[in-house]
Amino acid sequence: MKDFFKVAHLKEVFKYISCFPPVETEEIGLHETLERISAADVIADIDLPDFARSTMDGYAVSASSTFGATEGNPAYLTVKGSVAMGESPDFSIRSGEAAMISTGGMLPVGADSVVMVEHSDAIDDTTIEVYRSVAPGRHVVEAGEDIKKGEVILSCGRKLRPQETGLLAAFGKTAVKVYKKPVIGIISTGNEVIPIEDRPCQGQIRDINTYTLSGLVQKSGGIPLTFGIVRDDYDALFEKCRLAFDKSDMVLISGGSSVGVRDFTIDALSSLPDSSIIVHGISISPGKPTILAKVGNKACWGLPGHVVSAMIVFAAVVQPFIERIGGLASQHKVISRFSALISRNISSTQGRIDYIRIRLIEKDGFLWAEPILGKSGLINTMVKADGLVEIGINTEGLERGTEVEVIPFF
Amino acid sequence: MKDFFKVAHLKEVFKYISCFPPVETEEIGLHETLERISAADVIADIDLPDFARSTMDGYAVSASSTFGATEGNPAYLTVKGSVAMGESPDFSIRSGEAAMISTGGMLPVGADSVVMVEHSDAIDDTTIEVYRSVAPGRHVVEAGEDIKKGEVILSCGRKLRPQETGLLAAFGKTAVKVYKKPVIGIISTGNEVIPIEDRPCQGQIRDINTYTLSGLVQKSGGIPLTFGIVRDDYDALFEKCRLAFDKSDMVLISGGSSVGVRDFTIDALSSLPDSSIIVHGISISPGKPTILAKVGNKACWGLPGHVVSAMIVFAAVVQPFIERIGGLASQHKVISRFSALISRNISSTQGRIDYIRIRLIEKDGFLWAEPILGKSGLINTMVKADGLVEIGINTEGLERGTEVEVIPFF
Repeated sequence: MKDFFKVAHLKEVFKYISCFPPVETEEIGLHETLERISAADVIADIDLPDFARSTMDGYAVSASSTFGATEGNPAYLTVKGSVAMGESPDFSIRSGEAAMISTGGMLPVGADSVVMVEHSDAIDDTTIEVYRSVAPGRHVVEAGEDIKKGEVILSCGRKLRPQETGLLAAFGKTAVKVYKKPVIGIISTGNEVIPIEDRPCQGQIRDINTYTLSGLVQKSGGIPLTFGIVRDDYDALFEKCRLAFDKSDMVLISGGSSVGVRDFTIDALSSLPDSSIIVHGISISPGKPTILAKVGNKACWGLPGHVVSAMIVFAAVVQPFIERIGGLASQHKVISRFSALISRNISSTQGRIDYIRIRLIEKDGFLWAEPILGKSGLINTMVKADGLVEIGINTEGLERGTEVEVIPFF
Repeated sequence: MKDFFKVAHLKEVFKYISCFPPVETEEIGLHETLERISAADVIADIDLPDFARSTMDGYAVSASSTFGATEGNPAYLTVKGSVAMGESPDFSIRSGEAAMISTGGMLPVGADSVVMVEHSDAIDDTTIEVYRSVAPGRHVVEAGEDIKKGEVILSCGRKLRPQETGLLAAFGKTAVKVYKKPVIGIISTGNEVIPIEDRPCQGQIRDINTYTLSGLVQKSGGIPLTFGIVRDDYDALFEKCRLAFDKSDMVLISGGSSVGVRDFTIDALSSLPDSSIIVHGISISPGKPTILAKVGNKACWGLPGHVVSAMIVFAAVVQPFIERIGGLASQHKVISRFSALISRNISSTQGRIDYIRIRLIEKDGFLWAEPILGKSGLINTMVKADGLVEIGINTEGLERGTEVEVIPFF
């Protein structure tokens, strides 16, 4: 039997993230941008807006015409005309004059502010009373106030949300350069594992991992490419890995990563051209027997066969690697962890990071993280869970009521 | 000019959610389930697993054979055979006997626990020494320990995450009944609004809202169906609404919802067959001039034209309505709001709910929500923001350091 593997700390594993380059880029239309990663800076080529706009329905004025106006002593202004929406007014106004304007209308030359319609009364067709003074700039968006020409409106490596897409729309960018979605190959191993459409005989179980890992890959911005189940056989695994690396930007193999009679993953990976085993064993629990290999410039993960362990390793370490090759810049990662109070005492072992499945409960005005204990082969514990809590490498345990950081499952 | 509208409290608006029935259902394959909403309970038709499995590499034994075993006084067991993965062992074991077994292997009759390979030594081909005693059930997943036959494995109205899909896979469910994705029609209005591929003349702006709203609809589980831009014209809006309701499960109209010269939304909606205006004005800021109408059994939202206001109204109230018609059960909504400390004093007005755009910052071991102030027409403020903070209807303002609830933008 082989030596038991030497484990690496999680921090060390993350140092290898820069070994793996991002995937290629492509241009996509603006309706397909959601959650894609931008692959270039985009610069504003005009001011936004490129004219001064009203933010209210009312009258465009020179603010000085309203100074001192009150209900008892209104200002009387001559209405010079009405601003048609979407057009440049063909008149200007002077002191003592006003122009009817709607929200979004362009201020005529000479106007610097807008009096709300509620603060005025029409006396006749050409005269209004104004009951309140306005300051210059009031109820107006100035030219360039949103974005100035030359500003970066989208930086490379950012995940596109609806508002980034809206900003691109504002500048008429009908297409945007993004990173391709990385294709992640998924292989399940084990003589006991059967396709889900088959009926298991005694001793057999259906292939859960292909489905959980496919979902996690999608949530991480990748495209899952499934390669089915490989029996515990060196040649079969070697050939499947060759095929998977040919078609994928990263490969996940679940099962067969421990040191045991069926441990063909290390052997098969080591035999691939230009390959090296970077990590064999990570000081996390569950998930210790994880493998990270480099094959050419692509990453291969050997994940535990137990579904809970495989999912936790994915959340802890695989996802950031997928995001990296998918082009997400680390400074643009959104803060998505939040705090809760642990609802019971939890023991843990020093020298490793423990991941505890938890359910979130709101009680007594606090958010509690209630541990869900159970073996790492039990998928029902992940179904009951709302997220994970990470117990640090130097922590021996947590007392009830301790504030912990939740890694939510969204 | 018409009377200014009477505003409804947000809570009252939510009461109308039950007026709108869920969309129809469909069957989809297991690779397409991510974030879909289940439309039926699914019951376990077998135990999971349906045989006792080892969770370790080692020896299956009757626990009693190991009682009292220590390094100094090991138990000697006869190896009866080896469990082949994926097969039912064709032998049983008795007291004093053991069977080689790998992780995931089926326990032979007579075994109730597994000794880890690390706690044993092979003396010869048929004899092992065991250095530690094990309790019955140790390193074993019992039949039905994950899920028992007859249990609900998926309840109706739940959003499918990778783990729910994995559980369906474990039971061989190759297809699952889900709610269809609701189709949400999107109409932009305004004479000043032009398609994004056009070059704006003075006084014109490109159509941002169609793109931001499309993205938000996708994030809420809907399918956006865009109907372009309608000029401020009653007949045009009426016809476009008719078309949109014909093709959509809900319609969003941005712009034209305030009381002004261009206020055709109310008129057009009121003229549609079987329509009623349920809400005209909500006591939130920004977003007050929001309209909710019922047309047949479908909802129509009149949203403000300012992009920030429209996005905030969407987050505050439209999204829950889309989730409702998309089948999401309220008890299955995930807790996704979290706490942060507000980084500066914020004033607000009693009698309405204020939504403040915020950026999240980690500093001094705390998570801070830093307000981003700016007019509701400025999309850059949403691009800079990581989420919203809601200031309650009875709150006059917040002091720096107050704990607030963040509604994150993911």
